[in-house]
Amino acid sequence: MTRLDDERFMSMALDLAKRGQYTVHPNPAVGCVVVKDDEIVGQGWHERAGGPHAEVQALADAGERAQGATLYVTLEPCNHTGRTPPCTDAVIRSRVSRVVVACEDPNPLVRRRGLNSLHEAGIEVATGICGEDAIELNRGFFKRMSTGMPYVILKVATSLDGRIAMPDGESKWISGEESRLDSHRLRALSSAVLTGIGTIQKDDPALTVRHLETIRQPDRVILDSRLSISAKARVFDDSAQAYLFTATNIEGRKQLDGISNLEIISCQGEGGQVGLTSMLKECAKRQMNTILVEAGPRLTGNFLRQRLVDELVVYLAPDLLGSDALAMFHLPGITRLTDKIPMHITHSECLGPDLKIVLARTNSKIC
Amino acid sequence: MTRLDDERFMSMALDLAKRGQYTVHPNPAVGCVVVKDDEIVGQGWHERAGGPHAEVQALADAGERAQGATLYVTLEPCNHTGRTPPCTDAVIRSRVSRVVVACEDPNPLVRRRGLNSLHEAGIEVATGICGEDAIELNRGFFKRMSTGMPYVILKVATSLDGRIAMPDGESKWISGEESRLDSHRLRALSSAVLTGIGTIQKDDPALTVRHLETIRQPDRVILDSRLSISAKARVFDDSAQAYLFTATNIEGRKQLDGISNLEIISCQGEGGQVGLTSMLKECAKRQMNTILVEAGPRLTGNFLRQRLVDELVVYLAPDLLGSDALAMFHLPGITRLTDKIPMHITHSECLGPDLKIVLARTNSKIC
Repeated sequence: MTRLDDERFMSMALDLAKRGQYTVHPNPAVGCVVVKDDEIVGQGWHERAGGPHAEVQALADAGERAQGATLYVTLEPCNHTGRTPPCTDAVIRSRVSRVVVACEDPNPLVRRRGLNSLHEAGIEVATGICGEDAIELNRGFFKRMSTGMPYVILKVATSLDGRIAMPDGESKWISGEESRLDSHRLRALSSAVLTGIGTIQKDDPALTVRHLETIRQPDRVILDSRLSISAKARVFDDSAQAYLFTATNIEGRKQLDGISNLEIISCQGEGGQVGLTSMLKECAKRQMNTILVEAGPRLTGNFLRQRLVDELVVYLAPDLLGSDALAMFHLPGITRLTDKIPMHITHSECLGPDLKIVLARTNSKIC
Repeated sequence: MTRLDDERFMSMALDLAKRGQYTVHPNPAVGCVVVKDDEIVGQGWHERAGGPHAEVQALADAGERAQGATLYVTLEPCNHTGRTPPCTDAVIRSRVSRVVVACEDPNPLVRRRGLNSLHEAGIEVATGICGEDAIELNRGFFKRMSTGMPYVILKVATSLDGRIAMPDGESKWISGEESRLDSHRLRALSSAVLTGIGTIQKDDPALTVRHLETIRQPDRVILDSRLSISAKARVFDDSAQAYLFTATNIEGRKQLDGISNLEIISCQGEGGQVGLTSMLKECAKRQMNTILVEAGPRLTGNFLRQRLVDELVVYLAPDLLGSDALAMFHLPGITRLTDKIPMHITHSECLGPDLKIVLARTNSKIC
């Protein structure tokens, strides 16, 4: 096998992994192919937490043909018992002769344990094939495992002149239908959708995935420093779990008694506000890999100023709303060009009349 | 010849026409190929005003082979004597049997006269092949000829959050080197570069083409309602013609006496300002086809509000400058989403770290 062959088969495993990306939460998406004499004899992917892992699926598909074959898997096989037995046992039993892994397990407590036990069993092991793509696919899982923080995506629909609402708050709709559908796809890929009390009180959003099929709804994270939310808010309907973060711990709780699927968490930050970093850590503890922020300009401005945004997704509509309209982010205090918040464009595409621009924060680290 | 053949040869003629687009001002860029037995036997393009027209060049290139051939030309051949004799005479003399024209002459006084005289001479004539592309290539010339107004391109370099300068005016540089080079290409393609007295006093720009070779510098158009410009401003250096528009007609003129290549034009509009529509008409009378506006947010806001911008070119840098920074356009008074200024994206591309977005004003008419 040449390096090019290895990359070709790993790309196929990555494509298989992607089939699980909407359903595996909170697990990573993983794909696997078993290759013998340059031919694929087994393939599998992880579909949902609690279900069989990709390696086990692919080996079952290969059956006897696995013997002497090469197994390509996009993430290091686990060597511990979780909801399913260790994958390394199944790999060793299958008598494959070589295992190629895209990237090691991001969890420092188990990293390389799977590879080591395969090696000890006499299996040839290679790592790092298409590693960047594999990490990118599970960047939320990687960031949570390596840093204890979720990967934060900030989504905003704006006019060409950087405005997100008219002076009276009117904002339906700035972006076109294609952009709005795409933003529901973003929700479906996220562990949770986060917003602030301002948006709740203005729009009463459900924060659910609509307009496309999904087997799970993302969690809802609501920041409400003074616990002033109404018990009738649509984020409390029974379609998904809700986490309400507050900076107070007394009043307001009672009126929320009896709401199912709700956890209220106190997270006091500066100035009587919810502390964003500690809030995100609490989210990571609750197994949220990726959080999609859909909020007003004050809250999004705070995320940006505190350098908590890993990725920015902008749906840019080709219209001008004028200088009385509401600006994209409330980000005061930047006085010199050298103090700007630098980002870089990773992707752009036309979506109907709009332009979708994806940017990563320069120096954002996920592992 | 099929329609597809015609389009293929006209595309070649359009490619030839483009070779002249930086040099033909104030004429249109025109290309021509002569085709016999499916083979190109002559080609030519118009290089600069006063020089031979495309048809004459291509027929000279073809020589005797033109007899019985088809001539493809991107603009209707002229039937009148300007700086050169009528092209129709040369075409008739060449004994080509067929002439295919992309679009008719936009000047209502001469339109179809060239085609008619060819027809009367017994030559088969077809029009409208690649017509839209041919008009697009000379949109400034077409707009000026059909409406008496130049084609107005507004260029702006902005951050992702729609800001063009820091609170203290610092703006060097918002966009990257590749964007800045591209904006000099835009200047080189324009008949004139326009700015306001505010920009002159802040930056003292020369408004010339730099960083790329050019045989002509665009004219300079300066709006200075109260005639407060200094005689030492760099726009008065001798590298190009300057037109100074003012709303006053008394003071200030004397101090500008003796500046060569300067015309001062009075154009009073509302509120003691230069009237933009009448100013643009004066520019068109002075043979300006395309005007590139590079100005501050008040002046650009006025152009936009009065629906005088045909095309907007945005160099979008991937950084955030914050909400204290200067907004892209001063465009107050838009209160409802339905009152927005609608545009549509015609092109976008990455330029180094930036995104270049080209938009056309919805309902902008050039002919």
